[in-house]
Amino acid sequence: MGVVIPLEDAHEGRVEALSTLVAADMERVNQTILLHAASHVAMIPDIANHLISSGGKRLRPMLTLATAGLCGYCGDGHIKLAAAVEFMHTATLLHDDVVDESDMRRGKLAARMLWGNEATVLVGDYLLGQAFKMMVEVGSLACLEVLSSAATIIAEGEVMQLAAAKDTETSEDDYLAVIRAKTAALFSAASEVGPILARRPKAEIAACRGYGVNLGIAFQLIDDALDYGGASAKLGKNVGDDFREGKITLPVVLSFRRGSEKERMFWRRTLESGEIGDGDLETAIATMHKHRGLEDTVERARHYGAMAHDALELFPASAWKAALNDVVNFCIDRVH
Amino acid sequence: MGVVIPLEDAHEGRVEALSTLVAADMERVNQTILLHAASHVAMIPDIANHLISSGGKRLRPMLTLATAGLCGYCGDGHIKLAAAVEFMHTATLLHDDVVDESDMRRGKLAARMLWGNEATVLVGDYLLGQAFKMMVEVGSLACLEVLSSAATIIAEGEVMQLAAAKDTETSEDDYLAVIRAKTAALFSAASEVGPILARRPKAEIAACRGYGVNLGIAFQLIDDALDYGGASAKLGKNVGDDFREGKITLPVVLSFRRGSEKERMFWRRTLESGEIGDGDLETAIATMHKHRGLEDTVERARHYGAMAHDALELFPASAWKAALNDVVNFCIDRVH
Repeated sequence: MGVVIPLEDAHEGRVEALSTLVAADMERVNQTILLHAASHVAMIPDIANHLISSGGKRLRPMLTLATAGLCGYCGDGHIKLAAAVEFMHTATLLHDDVVDESDMRRGKLAARMLWGNEATVLVGDYLLGQAFKMMVEVGSLACLEVLSSAATIIAEGEVMQLAAAKDTETSEDDYLAVIRAKTAALFSAASEVGPILARRPKAEIAACRGYGVNLGIAFQLIDDALDYGGASAKLGKNVGDDFREGKITLPVVLSFRRGSEKERMFWRRTLESGEIGDGDLETAIATMHKHRGLEDTVERARHYGAMAHDALELFPASAWKAALNDVVNFCIDRVH
Repeated sequence: MGVVIPLEDAHEGRVEALSTLVAADMERVNQTILLHAASHVAMIPDIANHLISSGGKRLRPMLTLATAGLCGYCGDGHIKLAAAVEFMHTATLLHDDVVDESDMRRGKLAARMLWGNEATVLVGDYLLGQAFKMMVEVGSLACLEVLSSAATIIAEGEVMQLAAAKDTETSEDDYLAVIRAKTAALFSAASEVGPILARRPKAEIAACRGYGVNLGIAFQLIDDALDYGGASAKLGKNVGDDFREGKITLPVVLSFRRGSEKERMFWRRTLESGEIGDGDLETAIATMHKHRGLEDTVERARHYGAMAHDALELFPASAWKAALNDVVNFCIDRVH
C-alpha cells in the first residue's frame, strides 16, 4: 500500500521557489494524505493512490500552505486543510472521469477503466468524506464554511458545464461562470483558508481569495488553450480531448463567434453532433489560429493573471509573496 | 420549482405517534430542504426534487428531531441537521442508482434514467456539499465530527458491498459489516446529534447512538427480506431487485450455507454468473423458505430491534421515548 508521491514534477521550473518554501510542510501534507487514503477496504487505497501518486502538481494544497506562510501562520491547521483541499480535488477528478467517460488521466489509464465507474464514484465520495473529517479536526468553523461552500459551487459548476455541453452558442460569460465555479472556486478557497487560520483582517482574507479566484480562472483558460496545441506530454492529457468530448471552451466560443457561417457549420457538426472524422482536429486548430481563438484565450488569461498579482499588492514584499506571484507566471507560461 | 413533500405515507401506521410529535419541526425541515435544493442551475432542483418529493419516509431526519426532543433540546440546530441528514441520504441514493444501474427508485424512474448518469453523480455531490454547509451553519463541531465520519463510513460500506458483490461465499459477519457501514452509520449519526445538540452526558449520547445503529441494522435486514417477498407496491421497489443485481444479502447467505451442493450451484449460476431465467426468482424464494432464510433474517432483525429498545431504557418514560420505540416495531412489522 506504500506509494511514492513526487513532491514536484521536474519540469516545473517556475514554481521551484514555492516548492522549496513549502517543502517541509508538503512532506507533512503527503503523510496526511497517505494516512487518510488508507482503509481496510482494499479498493479504496488502491484507487486513491492510483490518482494521488500519479504526479499531480499539488498546486491547490500548495496555495493553502503558501498563503498561510504569507500571513505568518504558526499552527498546524494548514497541513490538514491542504490535504483536505487535495482530497476535494481528487474526488472531483474521479467523478469527472466517470462523467466525461475519460479513458486517460495524467497519462495513465483513468481509475474507471481499471476499477469501473461504480468504485470510482464511491471512492470519490469516500475522499470527500475524509476531506470534511480533516477540516472538522482542524476545528475552524470559518474555514469549514469556505471549503463546504466551495464543494457545492464546484458541483454546481460541473452541472452547468454539463448543461452547456455541445452548445456552440455558449457565450463567453456563460463559459466564465462555469470555470469560475468548477475550477476557480477551489483555488479561491484553498488560498482563503491561509489568512483565516492566521486570523488576519478581512482585507487580507479578501486579497488571498481574489488571488486564488483569478489564478484559478487564468489556470483553466490556459488549460483549455493547451488542449488544442502543444505540451500534451507535459500535461499527460491528449491534445484534442475537449474537442472529442464536445466541450465548449473559450477557444471554441471565440472562434465560433468570429467565424463564417461555413465554419459555424463545422463546429456544429463536430461539437454538437459529434461527427468527427480524420483531419477535423487539425481543421479545428487551424480555424482557431485564423481567428486568434487560442492567442486571445491566452490574452484573457493574462488579464486574470494581472488581477491575481494585484490582489497580493496589499502584502509587503516577502519570499512568500514572490513565490505566489511566480505561480501566476508559471501557470500562464505553460502555454509556450 | 415548487414541490409537495408528503410528510408521511398513509400506510405507516406505527410511526404515526412520532409523525405527530415532530409535525411542526418536520414542516420546517421540509422548508429548509426546498431552500437548499434550489440553484440557478435548473437541473439541480429538478433532479433533487424528483427524489426528495417522491415520498420517502423521512425516517432519518425524524430520528434527529425525535432524539433532540427526547433530550429536551430547545434550540433550532436540529432543523438544519435533520435536513442535512436527509440530503446525505438523498446523495447516497443518487450515487447508488448510478452504481447499481437501477431503472426504478421508489416506484418512479430513477433520476439517472431521466437525466443521465453524469448529472446524477454531480447533483449527488451538490447535495452532499449543501449538507455540509448546513451542518457548518449549525456550528457544532461535535455534530460535524459525527456526521462527517458517517459520510466516510457510508462510502466505505458501499465500496465493501461492491467488493463482496456476486460472492456467494460472503459470511454473515461480512454482510453485517457492510450494512453496519452503508445503512446503520447514518441512522446512528442522525440519532446521535440530538443529544449532542442538547449537551446531554456521554451515556445518553451513547444510548441514542446505540438506538440508531441497531435500528439501522434491523431496518436493512427487513429491507433485504422484503426484497424476496410481499410488500413490493408498498416499497415502490420490485421484488427480486437484489436477486437480479447479484446482491448478496442475509437471506442468500443463510440459504447458501444451509443448502445442498445442488442448491449452491443454483446460487452460483444466478448470483455469481448472472444467468437468470424464467422461474429462477420463484426457485430462489422457495429455497429460502425451505431453509428458513427469510424467517431467520427477520429473527435476526428482532434481535437488533431488542437492542435498540434496550438502548433507550436509560431514559425515563415520555411520549418521545414511546414514539422512538414504536419506530423499531414499525420497521420490523413492515415484513408482515
